[in-house]
Amino acid sequence: MAMEGESKELPEVLVLGPPWVFSTLESQFPNKFHYLKPWLSQLPLHQFLTSYAQSTQALLIPVSPPLNSPILDCLPSLKLVVTVSAGVEHLNFAELRGRGIAVAYAGNVFSEDVADMAVGLLIDVLRKVSAGDRFVKQRLQPIKPDFPLRSKLSGKQIGIVGLGKIGSEVAKRLEGFGCRISYNSRTKKPLVSYSYYSNVHELATNCEVLIICCGLTEETHHMINREVMLELGKDGVIINIGRGAVIDEKEMIRCLIEGEIGGAGLDVFEFEPEIPKQLFTLDNVVLSPHTAVTTHESFVGIAKLAVENLEAFFSNKPLLSPYVA
Amino acid sequence: MAMEGESKELPEVLVLGPPWVFSTLESQFPNKFHYLKPWLSQLPLHQFLTSYAQSTQALLIPVSPPLNSPILDCLPSLKLVVTVSAGVEHLNFAELRGRGIAVAYAGNVFSEDVADMAVGLLIDVLRKVSAGDRFVKQRLQPIKPDFPLRSKLSGKQIGIVGLGKIGSEVAKRLEGFGCRISYNSRTKKPLVSYSYYSNVHELATNCEVLIICCGLTEETHHMINREVMLELGKDGVIINIGRGAVIDEKEMIRCLIEGEIGGAGLDVFEFEPEIPKQLFTLDNVVLSPHTAVTTHESFVGIAKLAVENLEAFFSNKPLLSPYVA
Repeated sequence: MAMEGESKELPEVLVLGPPWVFSTLESQFPNKFHYLKPWLSQLPLHQFLTSYAQSTQALLIPVSPPLNSPILDCLPSLKLVVTVSAGVEHLNFAELRGRGIAVAYAGNVFSEDVADMAVGLLIDVLRKVSAGDRFVKQRLQPIKPDFPLRSKLSGKQIGIVGLGKIGSEVAKRLEGFGCRISYNSRTKKPLVSYSYYSNVHELATNCEVLIICCGLTEETHHMINREVMLELGKDGVIINIGRGAVIDEKEMIRCLIEGEIGGAGLDVFEFEPEIPKQLFTLDNVVLSPHTAVTTHESFVGIAKLAVENLEAFFSNKPLLSPYVA
Repeated sequence: MAMEGESKELPEVLVLGPPWVFSTLESQFPNKFHYLKPWLSQLPLHQFLTSYAQSTQALLIPVSPPLNSPILDCLPSLKLVVTVSAGVEHLNFAELRGRGIAVAYAGNVFSEDVADMAVGLLIDVLRKVSAGDRFVKQRLQPIKPDFPLRSKLSGKQIGIVGLGKIGSEVAKRLEGFGCRISYNSRTKKPLVSYSYYSNVHELATNCEVLIICCGLTEETHHMINREVMLELGKDGVIINIGRGAVIDEKEMIRCLIEGEIGGAGLDVFEFEPEIPKQLFTLDNVVLSPHTAVTTHESFVGIAKLAVENLEAFFSNKPLLSPYVA
């Protein structure tokens, strides 16, 4: 269990979840910390925390479930939360600030992988890569069949929703395809030459593809609603590698079924871990099980970053990837 | 049939095949030519040609079957062959030159679409886009499953085999992903900054991905043999959007099954229209039914180019996309 002798002198880190990446972290960076692992205990979580974590200063968590007040109430010494996600919608920053707790997050570790996946999903929706693979493998048949014509990517007008690090990486990649890039974000970026639209309606009206790269906040919740989808139009494509609830998922499904938008490539969903079954039968939809970040390289990268943030914290040095709300 | 009144005064074009794009060509550009359509006749082809095509100067053909001597012998007035493919392995240039017959081909019409597909196949193989879609849709299950970690594209060392128009378009796209580009071609390109390897063995040794962008000639037939694949190595990925027989397909299948290379994304196959069934069960292989060129945009583009080449020919103007062997 978590209390054995030799690791007692290492700095103590409470792990909840655990995050997917924790096994990578433990194996790649051994003997760095003494981990408290409540999931290995017979005790209920609350009792584990009040029994063993009263002096715990650092906490490592996944993106889900949300870090709530009852848990924080059990951790009176907590000073640092390290989350291994780029999205931070599971954290209440007002409360954490009030308790004097800092946050380190994934920063840009996943940005390239997520951007690669966004482009992969877009090519797949337009060019039917998955459908072609399925077609060949399932029908066991010679090629040059009645396979439908698809749509060209090069030259398309792409609308990036949220031009942060991930959105910028997506834009950089699609420039190489000769696409024309526009974007919507809270403010115009002074150093960026792409066309800026101050609201997502104008962006949708002027683009053939929307790529959702923003995080989930009160402002972005259901930002891509039925009206935006109708503005995007019947040949329009939506790619979502941000967060599911940025799109009104129920309306999106209706638009996809009724042909009011042309297709979608989705790595995230509004009510994860559930994916609406209505999406499974749609040929114009490519689904991905929230794997935009799951490469060997990014797992080693986030494990390293989490360790470095914890080491910085215990050495009273600045965090490497602090989240400033 | 092909001999009706009103179209008799239009320039005459013999169509063999017909090419896939012919219906687009006929519908998008009507009343340009009088087409001879032997497939609508009851006559055997040879008899049709000797009966109706003795004065035919222009011929429109698909990439398959090869244009052979017995057909050319039936067409004594032939001066132009228009093929709607970028590959020209179905044409015997020595014979055509000897008969004084010029060739117009697809030129660069397909280059962007083919390059887009090459990148789409590469992302799919590395990031398992098709497998993820299949996984979600077939298992009907919540996300975050036991889905395997994949490999990162950004930063990979990419070897382009054949840096013509398509290869250059592929390279341009992958630069946007932060990939490092090398290439092999008959000669070093003076204006290109990518690393040049004069033979494909050195290229394979120094790269993590090979993308086959060259045409099929005697020199390129089975250029990617077992030795090259072993040099590429067990994590190496092969993408083929060129021609199937550039790779020794039997050896590639063996390497894929035995884990001597890491994966493959294939739009073309050695013995088309057949695709080896052994490939169907391999999770590290993405298959595409020779659809790298099949977009609405490229079909309209090749139809337009074919018409423009024919118009130029009948007006004694230079061809728009002559093939110079």
